[in-house]
Amino acid sequence: MAEDIFKQFKEHSVAEFFKKNRQMLGFSGKVRSMTIIVHEYVTNSLDACEEAGILPEIFVQVEELNKETKDHYRITVKDNGPGIPKSHLGKALGQMLAGTKFHRYIQQRGQQGIGAAACTMYSYITTGQKTKAITCHRGKKLTADISIDFKGNKAVVEETSEEPTEETGLLVTAEFKDVRYERSNQGVYEYLRRTALANPHCTITLMDPNNEKSVFPRSVEVNPQKPFEIKPHPLGITTHDLLEFARVNENRKVSSFLQNAFSRVSAAKVDELRTICTEVDFDKDPHELSWEDAEKIVKSFAKVKWIAPAMDSLVPIGKERIETSFRNIFNPEIIVVTERSPRVYRGGIPFMVEAGIAYGGGLVAAEKKGEVMRFANRVPLLFDNSGCVISETIKSIEWNRYNMKNFEEEPVAVLVNLLSVHVPYTSAGKQAISNEEDVADEIKLAVMEAGRTIQRHLSGKRRAHEIATKRKVISRYINQLSSDLSDLAGTKNKKDLLARLEKIVDEKYSQEDLGEEKGEVATKDSAKVDEGEGEE
Amino acid sequence: MAEDIFKQFKEHSVAEFFKKNRQMLGFSGKVRSMTIIVHEYVTNSLDACEEAGILPEIFVQVEELNKETKDHYRITVKDNGPGIPKSHLGKALGQMLAGTKFHRYIQQRGQQGIGAAACTMYSYITTGQKTKAITCHRGKKLTADISIDFKGNKAVVEETSEEPTEETGLLVTAEFKDVRYERSNQGVYEYLRRTALANPHCTITLMDPNNEKSVFPRSVEVNPQKPFEIKPHPLGITTHDLLEFARVNENRKVSSFLQNAFSRVSAAKVDELRTICTEVDFDKDPHELSWEDAEKIVKSFAKVKWIAPAMDSLVPIGKERIETSFRNIFNPEIIVVTERSPRVYRGGIPFMVEAGIAYGGGLVAAEKKGEVMRFANRVPLLFDNSGCVISETIKSIEWNRYNMKNFEEEPVAVLVNLLSVHVPYTSAGKQAISNEEDVADEIKLAVMEAGRTIQRHLSGKRRAHEIATKRKVISRYINQLSSDLSDLAGTKNKKDLLARLEKIVDEKYSQEDLGEEKGEVATKDSAKVDEGEGEE
Repeated sequence: MAEDIFKQFKEHSVAEFFKKNRQMLGFSGKVRSMTIIVHEYVTNSLDACEEAGILPEIFVQVEELNKETKDHYRITVKDNGPGIPKSHLGKALGQMLAGTKFHRYIQQRGQQGIGAAACTMYSYITTGQKTKAITCHRGKKLTADISIDFKGNKAVVEETSEEPTEETGLLVTAEFKDVRYERSNQGVYEYLRRTALANPHCTITLMDPNNEKSVFPRSVEVNPQKPFEIKPHPLGITTHDLLEFARVNENRKVSSFLQNAFSRVSAAKVDELRTICTEVDFDKDPHELSWEDAEKIVKSFAKVKWIAPAMDSLVPIGKERIETSFRNIFNPEIIVVTERSPRVYRGGIPFMVEAGIAYGGGLVAAEKKGEVMRFANRVPLLFDNSGCVISETIKSIEWNRYNMKNFEEEPVAVLVNLLSVHVPYTSAGKQAISNEEDVADEIKLAVMEAGRTIQRHLSGKRRAHEIATKRKVISRYINQLSSDLSDLAGTKNKKDLLARLEKIVDEKYSQEDLGEEKGEVATKDSAKVDEGEGEE
Repeated sequence: MAEDIFKQFKEHSVAEFFKKNRQMLGFSGKVRSMTIIVHEYVTNSLDACEEAGILPEIFVQVEELNKETKDHYRITVKDNGPGIPKSHLGKALGQMLAGTKFHRYIQQRGQQGIGAAACTMYSYITTGQKTKAITCHRGKKLTADISIDFKGNKAVVEETSEEPTEETGLLVTAEFKDVRYERSNQGVYEYLRRTALANPHCTITLMDPNNEKSVFPRSVEVNPQKPFEIKPHPLGITTHDLLEFARVNENRKVSSFLQNAFSRVSAAKVDELRTICTEVDFDKDPHELSWEDAEKIVKSFAKVKWIAPAMDSLVPIGKERIETSFRNIFNPEIIVVTERSPRVYRGGIPFMVEAGIAYGGGLVAAEKKGEVMRFANRVPLLFDNSGCVISETIKSIEWNRYNMKNFEEEPVAVLVNLLSVHVPYTSAGKQAISNEEDVADEIKLAVMEAGRTIQRHLSGKRRAHEIATKRKVISRYINQLSSDLSDLAGTKNKKDLLARLEKIVDEKYSQEDLGEEKGEVATKDSAKVDEGEGEE
C-alpha cells in the first residue's frame, strides 16, 4: 500500500513547477499579468542596453485582439540594445534559470533568468501560440519562433529567416489571454511612467490598444555610470559561501585566495586575520579548508574593521532626480531626499537605500494620503505592497514623532529605492522584497532621516503661524497705546511713539522667525533643482 | 562587447536557485526559519501517515547546541508512518521537485516536493552537516546521511547501516544555524498547537530546548475520511490543459477521452456537448485535436450545467471541531461556523472554504482584537499574513454591516481553512495564498454568512439591553400609578391593580424578547458541542 504511493513518485522540471504555480511568477489577475509581461521584457531591454553602453530607446505596443472578451492581446517590446546571438536566443527566451543574470555580482534589474521564459510560457499556455523574436546582432537579423519543452525545461527554436542588417536590437512579440489593459495604478501606463521617472536616460514609447501614443522622453543624455561586477564583501559571508568560493578558486594559498576572492581584503588585512585566527594555517591549499577552518575564518572576519563595499558598484537614482520626479508627480509643499551609504547583508551582499518624502501642496489637492512608491534597482514595484519590507518598514515608523498623526491620514508620499547586486525578492514574481533585518534597518534610517527635516519644516510652519497671530494681536494695541501714551505724557510725538513700538515688535518677531527659515531650506533647495528639468 | 556578456551565460539548477533565494522557501528570520523546518517535516509526516491509513503519532524535538549564540539547534521529527523505501529516500529528502506531491490531484498538505529537500539544503548551507534519516519500512531499518549536489539538484545518500525491524516510520534529524526557538505567536509551539487544533486525530509531542515536554493528544480516535485522488473538473479547464490531457490519454475518440479524463462528464453530457459544439468531430482521435478544437470544447464546457466536483475529495476540519477549538482557545461569547460547498478555480481545481467567527467573552478578557487564524488543507499559516488572500478578504469586508465598528478594534477572531487539491500559494514558502478571484469570493461569502448570525446576536443583545432599561423605567411608575389610581377611584384594590399592571408590562416585553432569543441560538448550539470534548 505504501509501495503503491511510491510508484507515483516523479521528478519535475522547474518549467513544470512554474507552469503549475504561475502565480509565483506574478501571473495572477488579468491586469497584473499584463503588467508583469511588459515588466519582464522592459527590464531585460534596459539591462541589455546599459550593459552594452547604449542609450535605451524602448517601444512598447499593446494590441487588443478580442474586443468582446477584453482578455486577449498581443504585446510587443522593441529595444535598440545589442540583440542576442543566435546561439543564445533560445536559452534567453525559452529556458528557465538560464542566462547571465543569476550568478553575477552586479546591480541589474533582472536577477533570476526566469522572466522572459516565463512570458513565453504564459503566452503558450493561454493561447497555444509561440513567441516571435527578431534579433539584430552583429550584422545579422534573425527571425525565430520560440516555445518551451516543459518536461525538460528546454527551449524549442524554429528559425524562420536570416538576413543581413545594419541595426542592432531585439524585438519580442507574443499573444496572451487572461490579461487586460487598464489605465489604473497597476497598469502598463503607470508602470512605464514610473520606470521613466527612475530611468531619466531612457526614452520609452507606449502605443496602447486605442492607438494612443504616449512618449516618456529621456531628460538625461548619458547612461548612468555603469555598475560593475564586484566580489563579495567579507562581512556577512557564511561558512558555506567561503567553502564554495574556495572550491572553485585557483590560488595555492588561503591567504592569496582571500585577497582575490573577496573585496576589501588587502595583504595587510590578511596579516591582521592571521593574528586573530591563529588556529588556521593561511598557507595551506584553500581546497583543503575544512568546515571548521572556514567557520573560524568567518568568525575572524567579524572582528576586523572593513571598508564598506565599493560605493560605485551601486548606482542610485540620485537626489536631484527623485526631487524632480516628486515635483512632477505631486508638486508638494516640501521634498526631502536622503541617500545612505552602502551596507552588506547576508552573504556579503552590498546594498544601499535612497529615500524621499514629499509633503503637502499638490498632495493635499490630489487628496493623496500615505502614498508609498517602491523601487528596486530602479524598477518600480506595483504589486504585493503589503508583503514588502519597504511598505512594512514605512508603516512601522512612529510618524507622530515627525508632527504627523497617522501615515495613512497625512498628505505624504514616501519613495524608497533599494539597490543591490541581489535583491531578496519574496518570490520569483519579484514584486515584494523579503524582510531582511539589515535591509529593513537601512530603510528605516533613511526614511527617518528625511522625516526629521520634514518635522522641522512642519513645526517651523506651526511656530510661524503662532508668531503671526501673536503679532497681529499685539499690533492692534500699538496704535491705541501710542496715542494714549502721548496724551498721557501730554506730548505730540504719537507718530514717533508708534514707529518705535512697531520697530520693537518687528525686531522681536523677525528674530523668532529664524527658526522657521531653517525649516524651509529644504523646500528652497529642491525648488531650485526643479528649474530647467521637465518630465514628459 | 555584447559577446563578452554572453560568454557569461550559464544554466542553473532549481537547487541553486533556491539556495540563493532561500527566502522564497520561507528561510528569512531565525524564528521563522525554525518554524518552517518543523512545518515541512511535520506536514510530510501527517501526509504519509494518513496516506497509509495510520493514526499519526508525531514526536518533535528541538535541542539548543550553543547557549551563547542562541542560533544553533538540532531538530528531530519522528513519525509512525509507513517509512520510505531505500529506493526513494534520497529523492524524498535530497532532491527538489521530486516526489508524489506535485502532480497528484488530491488534497494533501505538501504539494510541491520541495519542503524536505529545502531543509536538507538549509542544514547544509548553515552548518555544513548532512541530514540523518532513519527509515523503517517493510521490516528493514535503514540509516543514512543525506546531502544535495546543488549543481545537478541530485541527492547524495550514504547508507550507514541496515538491520531488520518490526517498526515502521521515519525519523529525520539535522543541525541548523541561523534559527531560533521562541515561544512566540510564530514559534514552533504555537505552530504545533494550531496543527493539533486542525488535526484532532493526531498526537503530537514536543520536547523543547529546556526539555519541557508538551503533548497535544488526539481527541478523535479515527483518521479523517481519506481524501481521494480525483480527475479535474471541466469547469475552468484551460485550452492548454485540455490538450495536455489529450496528449497523454489512451482513448481513441474525443468523446471517450472527455468521459475518462475529467470528472462529472457522463455520456449524456458528451451528447449535450456535441449539440453545442458542432464544429468539432467528437469521434476523432484526441491526439489530433487542434488548439482551435480544444478552445471550442472549452467554450462549450461553460455552456453546460455541471455537478460540482466530488464533495468527498475534500475533507474539511468540520463545524464541531472548529467550534471546540475556538472554545478552547478563546472561550468566546458566541461562535458561528459556516462550511461552503466545493467550487472550482483555474484549471478545474476543486476547493472549498470553511470559516468560523468567535466574538466577545474570553476575547475581551484576553484583549484579542481582529485576530485572523489561517489554515490551508489543515496546515496553520503563521507568516506573510498581509500578503494572503484570506487576511486581505477578511479586511475587505464591511464589518459595520455586522454591528462592528472596525475589524481591528473588535473582540473578534476569524478562522478560515481553505481546502484544495492545489492550494495556490504565492511562493514556495507556502505561507500565503495568492489572490485567485474565485477563492477570494468564496472566502468572503463564508465569512459574511457567519457574520450575519453574529450580527443578529449583537443586535439582539443591543435590543435586549434597550428593553431592559425601558422596563426598569416603566416599573418605577407602576407602583406609584397603581396607588394613585386606587386613591383616585376611591377603591382599595391597589394590590390588584399593581399585579395587573405588572402583568401587562411582563407580557409586552416577553414578546419583544423573542427577537433576542433567536440571536442566541448559535451560542447554545456550540455550547452543547463543547461537552465531553477537551483539548490538550
